[in-house]
Amino acid sequence: MNEFELIQNIFKASVMANTQGRKDILLGIGDDCAQVQVPQGQSLVFSMDTLVEGRHFPFDADPVDIGYRAVATCVSDLAAMGAKPAFFTLGLTIPKSDPQWLAGLAQGMAELAEPIGLTLLGGDTTKGPLTLTLQVHGYVEVRQTPLRSNAKVGDDVYVTGLLGDAAAAVPIVTGEVLVSNERLDYFYDRYWRPTPRLIVGMALKRVVNAMMDISDGLAQDIQHILKASNVGARLEADRVPISAELRQWQPESALSLALTGGDDYELCFTASKEQASEIQLITQTLSLPCTKVGEVASEGFSIEGYDGDISGWQHF
Amino acid sequence: MNEFELIQNIFKASVMANTQGRKDILLGIGDDCAQVQVPQGQSLVFSMDTLVEGRHFPFDADPVDIGYRAVATCVSDLAAMGAKPAFFTLGLTIPKSDPQWLAGLAQGMAELAEPIGLTLLGGDTTKGPLTLTLQVHGYVEVRQTPLRSNAKVGDDVYVTGLLGDAAAAVPIVTGEVLVSNERLDYFYDRYWRPTPRLIVGMALKRVVNAMMDISDGLAQDIQHILKASNVGARLEADRVPISAELRQWQPESALSLALTGGDDYELCFTASKEQASEIQLITQTLSLPCTKVGEVASEGFSIEGYDGDISGWQHF
Repeated sequence: MNEFELIQNIFKASVMANTQGRKDILLGIGDDCAQVQVPQGQSLVFSMDTLVEGRHFPFDADPVDIGYRAVATCVSDLAAMGAKPAFFTLGLTIPKSDPQWLAGLAQGMAELAEPIGLTLLGGDTTKGPLTLTLQVHGYVEVRQTPLRSNAKVGDDVYVTGLLGDAAAAVPIVTGEVLVSNERLDYFYDRYWRPTPRLIVGMALKRVVNAMMDISDGLAQDIQHILKASNVGARLEADRVPISAELRQWQPESALSLALTGGDDYELCFTASKEQASEIQLITQTLSLPCTKVGEVASEGFSIEGYDGDISGWQHF
Repeated sequence: MNEFELIQNIFKASVMANTQGRKDILLGIGDDCAQVQVPQGQSLVFSMDTLVEGRHFPFDADPVDIGYRAVATCVSDLAAMGAKPAFFTLGLTIPKSDPQWLAGLAQGMAELAEPIGLTLLGGDTTKGPLTLTLQVHGYVEVRQTPLRSNAKVGDDVYVTGLLGDAAAAVPIVTGEVLVSNERLDYFYDRYWRPTPRLIVGMALKRVVNAMMDISDGLAQDIQHILKASNVGARLEADRVPISAELRQWQPESALSLALTGGDDYELCFTASKEQASEIQLITQTLSLPCTKVGEVASEGFSIEGYDGDISGWQHF
């Protein structure tokens, strides 16, 4: 068995396992292309993310964590479209072929991918500096896609979950800051194990006007919605949902981390005020906190009660 | 304009230009996902390739060449499935944001992508060592996909075009070997401008039994067909199509390069003998040489008239 077959076998045993019983997959890994028949009445949505060691995750991280988080961050884009996960591809560049490391990566990917029905359906493995490029694909009914460009003046602006923990965790996961075991456990998971908001995304797609996932910080990401929709927004800082853990650990910078920190992978959406009770019902049913943080305005962008910088993660 | 928008604009002006009039593209670049509706009766095929600088192409290469070849090598997988190119995504990791370099890359990609109806429909740009991951997507009728696993004992084995030139060109394009201008022109193009065999692939899909593209050398790649089909093959070395240019320049190693060199991106296929005249007609109509190089046998693999090593490009 050559290195190439070895890698294939590692992935076959885990994330590639569940293609059986899938009518949409006509041809799996092993030919020049994979082949898929999108279910009747559905469209295909997809998103590609590249993660570079030392830039998007720390050097020498646990491969299980890398694998889980890589799938999670990419699947978060499917959640923002209200789509059902279907399959993903992996362009994996690794400095050396280490079976144990690869098995860890595959395990971490499978941990998230399997329960959400996402299967590995192709990719490429090359030698070079550690880089992962994932493309995730999902299905969604043609006319039910929540876009960034559909926010209306007067809409309420909401976010799911809690913001800021993942950004606060960065110096912990890189080892720059040492904290108590209890704090380590909480923040380590908040960075490495984001939960893509798939179910709430699917449930909300019928009631929201605009939706996206927050990867680069609320203050920066919501501006993508505002720009695409040609509207403005007024947010209120004291409505931004922040965990007790973060408030306690970093009372001074908690708000700034929540607004500009990134890596949370929660959803941000706008909806007309008439949908408020429906949204409350959905989020209560799913036990996911969902917080109104402001309103869509005709123009401008402000965050009342916050005078810090509002740019988030810079890609360059 | 930040670096990120700059990059988007460079690509928008070239490879991303032709999504207008495309009924299959419901949502282009700019949201969390792109959205596609696969045409009625068609299935989606896709393939991902990663190209690392210094490994899959030389350091400091012309970005126009890198762009063209990246699309060509990936699209070659669509040709092998007899599929019509539809769209692609690009995970681009670059050490720095150089507008001129990026414009060159986009130009090279557009040079091939535009005429074949392939449009850029998403991706990610990150900072790091130069690496390109492309995923190309095409459409093909559900029951007309030529697989690797369908070769039959007694089939003829064919290859399109000429083999070995691209591998011979490697020391020229890396600058290790200096040659005359005339030779440089010929071999430079043979390495940097492979022609994906799309039209012949689409025309042949009804008459072939098994088909794949040759990226790692005929001797190695055909074994993928043999393994997947559970058959053997006997090839004849003196039938392998080699250019006059390569025979003249490297008479001693021409055959070895043609069999094990890789990077040619021609098609290899098997077809029953009854299809011989139909195949001849197709390849004559398309003015593409198509050569019988051997036959499918019940077991074993041999190349009569060649006693060298028959392993091709190693991925690790």
